Amino acid sequence: MPTQFDPPSGTRDFLAAEWELREHAFARIRSVFARYGFEPLVTPAFERLDVLLGKYGDDGDKLIFKILRRGEHESTGEADLALRYDHTVPLARVAAAHGSQLPTPYKRYAIGPVWRADRPGKGRYREFLQCDLDTLGSNSAMADAEIICAVHDVLTGLGLSGFRFLLNSRRVLAGLLEAFGVPAELGPGVLITLDKLDKLVPGEVIEELAGRGLAEAQATRLVAALTAADAVEQIRDALKRSDEGAAGLDEVDSLLSLVAGQVPAGAVTFVPRLVRGLSYYTGPIWEVAAEGGAGSLAGGGRYDQLIAALGGPDVPATGGSLGMERILMLLPRPEAGHTRLDVAVTVMDARHAARSFGFAAAARDAGLRASVYLGGSGKLGRQLKWASDAGARWAVIYGNADEEAGTVTVRDMTSGEQDSVPAGGLAAHFAELAAG
Amino acid sequence: MPTQFDPPSGTRDFLAAEWELREHAFARIRSVFARYGFEPLVTPAFERLDVLLGKYGDDGDKLIFKILRRGEHESTGEADLALRYDHTVPLARVAAAHGSQLPTPYKRYAIGPVWRADRPGKGRYREFLQCDLDTLGSNSAMADAEIICAVHDVLTGLGLSGFRFLLNSRRVLAGLLEAFGVPAELGPGVLITLDKLDKLVPGEVIEELAGRGLAEAQATRLVAALTAADAVEQIRDALKRSDEGAAGLDEVDSLLSLVAGQVPAGAVTFVPRLVRGLSYYTGPIWEVAAEGGAGSLAGGGRYDQLIAALGGPDVPATGGSLGMERILMLLPRPEAGHTRLDVAVTVMDARHAARSFGFAAAARDAGLRASVYLGGSGKLGRQLKWASDAGARWAVIYGNADEEAGTVTVRDMTSGEQDSVPAGGLAAHFAELAAG
Repeated sequence: MPTQFDPPSGTRDFLAAEWELREHAFARIRSVFARYGFEPLVTPAFERLDVLLGKYGDDGDKLIFKILRRGEHESTGEADLALRYDHTVPLARVAAAHGSQLPTPYKRYAIGPVWRADRPGKGRYREFLQCDLDTLGSNSAMADAEIICAVHDVLTGLGLSGFRFLLNSRRVLAGLLEAFGVPAELGPGVLITLDKLDKLVPGEVIEELAGRGLAEAQATRLVAALTAADAVEQIRDALKRSDEGAAGLDEVDSLLSLVAGQVPAGAVTFVPRLVRGLSYYTGPIWEVAAEGGAGSLAGGGRYDQLIAALGGPDVPATGGSLGMERILMLLPRPEAGHTRLDVAVTVMDARHAARSFGFAAAARDAGLRASVYLGGSGKLGRQLKWASDAGARWAVIYGNADEEAGTVTVRDMTSGEQDSVPAGGLAAHFAELAAG
Repeated sequence: MPTQFDPPSGTRDFLAAEWELREHAFARIRSVFARYGFEPLVTPAFERLDVLLGKYGDDGDKLIFKILRRGEHESTGEADLALRYDHTVPLARVAAAHGSQLPTPYKRYAIGPVWRADRPGKGRYREFLQCDLDTLGSNSAMADAEIICAVHDVLTGLGLSGFRFLLNSRRVLAGLLEAFGVPAELGPGVLITLDKLDKLVPGEVIEELAGRGLAEAQATRLVAALTAADAVEQIRDALKRSDEGAAGLDEVDSLLSLVAGQVPAGAVTFVPRLVRGLSYYTGPIWEVAAEGGAGSLAGGGRYDQLIAALGGPDVPATGGSLGMERILMLLPRPEAGHTRLDVAVTVMDARHAARSFGFAAAARDAGLRASVYLGGSGKLGRQLKWASDAGARWAVIYGNADEEAGTVTVRDMTSGEQDSVPAGGLAAHFAELAAG
């Protein structure tokens, strides 16, 4: 049951354990991207409304969170700003605004939340993380290959395995339609239907193609070729009958040869029926299928006209997007749970507050996480309970006997063993503990 | 002149060099906070509107960015959500929502943007970073002292120096008013005026106090004591005449003794005329003055009733906030400028694309940032220009002579010296370059 104190529908509060897992993944991702020479770009949470409207289709427009005008204009009920819906439109705007300051090609990544007013559901949020990398300004297949390799390295670096890259090209699809004699005007609809080959049985797909106006014999031949055991060979043969198809095949093959040395054999395979919904792709397209059919982890492709269409300069572009929320769900959880402290310093006597404070500081100087007890109980048991709840590995105790002897007691919270350390040797003792 | 491609008024695009500087500072800050046992908390960018409204006063309410309702409700022109205005109200909501899951005390930090529809100006933004740390659930002066020490360590860790903590207590201020016979009903107004002692001359302050209804003789005595060369001694003496004042003085003195061992002498000083505007403080208050009067870098204090007033549980609380935008402006810039690459791999012949790709991968395996040339020029000069623009320390060249000899040429971009490395030894060569 949601209460008045829950975060708004479709959003989440991230407490420490969960956030640290995410932060750890982000750091890994940033480090892989940097090694490929991609740079970070961070844009504002909101854009002017007109920058976003009309860029995501009618359905997309409805999902944009719009911000009400302020001051005297608030009563108009109009919006002038809107929350970021993806990282691509802001990229196009930045390319237009900062063009001359940007390197050529411009290789950038963006990791940050985007907001969509979708109906929230299991694993579907209104505030969710998107992680994109894109290269603007290069026609080279090496730019496409770099994206694929970087995404591969990110997934591997995060500890995932068993995933597979499915590779195709929009030009292969165009050639396919040509080779099978699909009338040009039916092309886009036919591709939308072919995209369902994973979900529907062949007969249903043929029926839907016929419904779109494709002759049934043609539809049958096309679906048979795409679903045959030797589909790839059949399609490769068929594509030779089309210039566009042959060019698309070259594109796919040169990408396969570029990545061959960098990823394990079989990690990237040509899948001629891969369509990917978005109509803006112009060249290679790819998707990462999770192990065991757990859905898609990432996807991308070349989109040479999109940046200009979004208001940016007319530059070729290729990129990819990681499905971070799904990826984060698949990540192995660390065996040791989240802890807050390495050293918990008890305070048995208010007279010793400053001294206890110094013990904690000494532990910090050694790089350990340390805090003094901030509660109101003077009982050792109560304070050790606090130390244990915080996951502390050591507790520091300074009792009357210590005061007389000039020592500090360091208790190992796992074994319960206690060391008497001369007060002057505490810093060195912590340095030793920190070293392991 | 703003163009249609600029980010919305009061917001910024962060390109790589600027963002990396910020990211570096955040990492330092997180590491200090973690060593003090503070945990991260990340809340959504927006809250339900009713969670925020009425929490910041009438002026604050006007500065809240409100989000229009969606779908069929959009046409009502009403808002139901609003962008985060600070990190404190979300903290109160989280304390109410997740209370039982949170440790006691709950020590958390938040680093993230907040949004206020202020008039943008030099150094003043509508999207700006706020960095807070707070301890909920402890009455101990050690909790206050921890915050002060952590803020001190953060500022020092960021490379700042010469700043000074000004320390006071709301109870000292209450005692001061009592000791100088200020009628209780005039108290809040008198404090607002005393807060101007840094900006106005004493005569103006006395006049304003008189305007508030304080007898002129009283106003003169009060201002004289606060501005005297021995103000601290005079005030300490005066505070003994008030129980509340004596308690406040104890509070200040115990804080001074707790931090004494952890910060340099003189880094924290008692300033009895420090008021801090916000009325919610209940105990110690402090502010960090930048070197040379460049304004305040951080501030905070104890606010034992606020969390309950904001809808959270009734817990004592103390915390601080870093003025990140000002701090970031003061940070020393790294001497070496921003670079994108360590190793730039030229591609002199399309036949060698896959091989060049492998060279870059080998450099990455050694932990270096590497990329192949993605442009269209086959000219070495052009490609070396790209390498130099990217700040690469080395360029890799694989020409016809290399192909015949089975070598790879590695060029030092600073000295122009070139090494011929056997292709099989390239990985080891990169490892050496990376190490030293």
